[in-house]
Amino acid sequence: MAVDLLGGDQAPAVVVDGALRACQADPALSLLLVGPTEAADAVLAALGPESRHRVHAVAAPTGPHGHERDISSVESGVRTAVLAVAQGRADAVISAGNTGATVTSAALGLGRWPGIRRPPLAAVLPSAAGRIVLLDVGSSVDPDEHTLAMHARLGSAYASVVHGVSAPRVGLLTIGTERGKGDRLRRAAPAVLAGLELPGGGRYVGLVEGNDVVTGAAADVVVTDGFTGNVLLKGLETAYALIGSPAPQPPLPRAAVLLGVAGTVVVCHGAASGEDLAAGIGFAATLHRRAAVPAIADFITGPAGRTPEDPLSARGGHEQ
Amino acid sequence: MAVDLLGGDQAPAVVVDGALRACQADPALSLLLVGPTEAADAVLAALGPESRHRVHAVAAPTGPHGHERDISSVESGVRTAVLAVAQGRADAVISAGNTGATVTSAALGLGRWPGIRRPPLAAVLPSAAGRIVLLDVGSSVDPDEHTLAMHARLGSAYASVVHGVSAPRVGLLTIGTERGKGDRLRRAAPAVLAGLELPGGGRYVGLVEGNDVVTGAAADVVVTDGFTGNVLLKGLETAYALIGSPAPQPPLPRAAVLLGVAGTVVVCHGAASGEDLAAGIGFAATLHRRAAVPAIADFITGPAGRTPEDPLSARGGHEQ
Repeated sequence: MAVDLLGGDQAPAVVVDGALRACQADPALSLLLVGPTEAADAVLAALGPESRHRVHAVAAPTGPHGHERDISSVESGVRTAVLAVAQGRADAVISAGNTGATVTSAALGLGRWPGIRRPPLAAVLPSAAGRIVLLDVGSSVDPDEHTLAMHARLGSAYASVVHGVSAPRVGLLTIGTERGKGDRLRRAAPAVLAGLELPGGGRYVGLVEGNDVVTGAAADVVVTDGFTGNVLLKGLETAYALIGSPAPQPPLPRAAVLLGVAGTVVVCHGAASGEDLAAGIGFAATLHRRAAVPAIADFITGPAGRTPEDPLSARGGHEQ
Repeated sequence: MAVDLLGGDQAPAVVVDGALRACQADPALSLLLVGPTEAADAVLAALGPESRHRVHAVAAPTGPHGHERDISSVESGVRTAVLAVAQGRADAVISAGNTGATVTSAALGLGRWPGIRRPPLAAVLPSAAGRIVLLDVGSSVDPDEHTLAMHARLGSAYASVVHGVSAPRVGLLTIGTERGKGDRLRRAAPAVLAGLELPGGGRYVGLVEGNDVVTGAAADVVVTDGFTGNVLLKGLETAYALIGSPAPQPPLPRAAVLLGVAGTVVVCHGAASGEDLAAGIGFAATLHRRAAVPAIADFITGPAGRTPEDPLSARGGHEQ
């Protein structure tokens, strides 16, 4: 797992804490820590010499002024982590840095799947009726209806592959289910969504509202633009952290996965705690071990089933 | 209180229930029930003959097909209720009907204050640090930055007048506090908001995020477009109803007040329960008794202090 030590409001301290917790929680995990080597040394020192083989450090190139907290240097952390995945030296990237920089680095460094304009970030929220996939939560601002349609396909594939939902119900987030409600984008999108074939037997169930993301009664996947999704995600996550989860299930990682690039990329909030970072690293490892991203890629870009001859298998294999 | 019996997903039954609960909770309240007279009869029968003077009925004109649940008839409920306020036969309107129809009816029937393009709906949410005014929650979709600036002024006036907050902190809801984050609207708005004089000594405190609406730590008033505000409101209200409030305070009415029209107009959700309707009616009565709407109007359209000579006093008086 390539971990960006420079991303996050309290980097690198909080990332060091998260990396340490992740290693302690999962003895099979090994980390490539990207950024100041002192930070990697701190993780190693805390883990003890018997874990030396599990923690590797790589410096991130410094910016024009030589300060690691330069804007360009901060972004160089995630760029270097992405490069490590592209070169096969790591299996996944985890960053709590600037979302835009992470999405751009991943799109350029790993490549987008055909048909993907702006890779969305998918978050998973607890609901009274089970897990909800909410996307996009911060990558696509001011998208058009065709971008929302791709979010719907990616979300349906994710619910099928990662959550094992058969025939995921996919809803479009809006502010009322009467005809003509919503903004320009939400008035244009239903016509595109209604005609869509969704992966994993997914079904477009029409318009849903903010309350449906909490009850989970109407949909397994909720599609929206990155602005609305980010605001709702941060509101609900904070409410659940403060008051309690709406579902009697283990807490879900407060991290989002980038869909539509050829690699596993997990994004934590800028304000993520060490615990959040550790959960994000563990989440990335689980996605990688289950080969979730290549399986979702097959749904979006390939034939219905992946065969050994399929070129996607080679790409999938490259990531593992 | 002019109550629209035809508005809401389960009208008129749920509105009848709400009207009855409101009368039982507040012996000083009297209602003008707009819609089927049988519904008004049901409220009267339940209250008993000694309450006859408190409940009045007025029919809403039926639509072209004579069915009271025609689209046009449903909207005629709120139009008739607005007319009653405009004519001085009622002091406030309460509707759980279509938001767009209510806003349009109120703007046409009561008149907008000078400078108001699209009157926003302001909701009040509990937060860990106290009440938060969130606006708009469903009236202005696709607004521009100048409409958001008016939301900021109205919200600051509301927090000052209704919540008694001195120097309200007013924040702009977005998805990250780094420069350049957010969509087109959120990149354009800060320049307009930063130069604004806000009523009640309000201060623009810059960008806030979804989590700040839950913690209440950053702002007393949170400004956004009606789409994002509606999604966040419905998400958080449902979370709080399911799990509990983030604050140890009495529950707040799940209703929003329309700001920028010359009258007191309270909107409940289409899915409002009888309890929600009763809370909305009680909320409207409180706003009216405190002359909140005229006081907010003074902040927006008049000189700093209202004098007996001020023409706004006459308009305010008309509403009382």
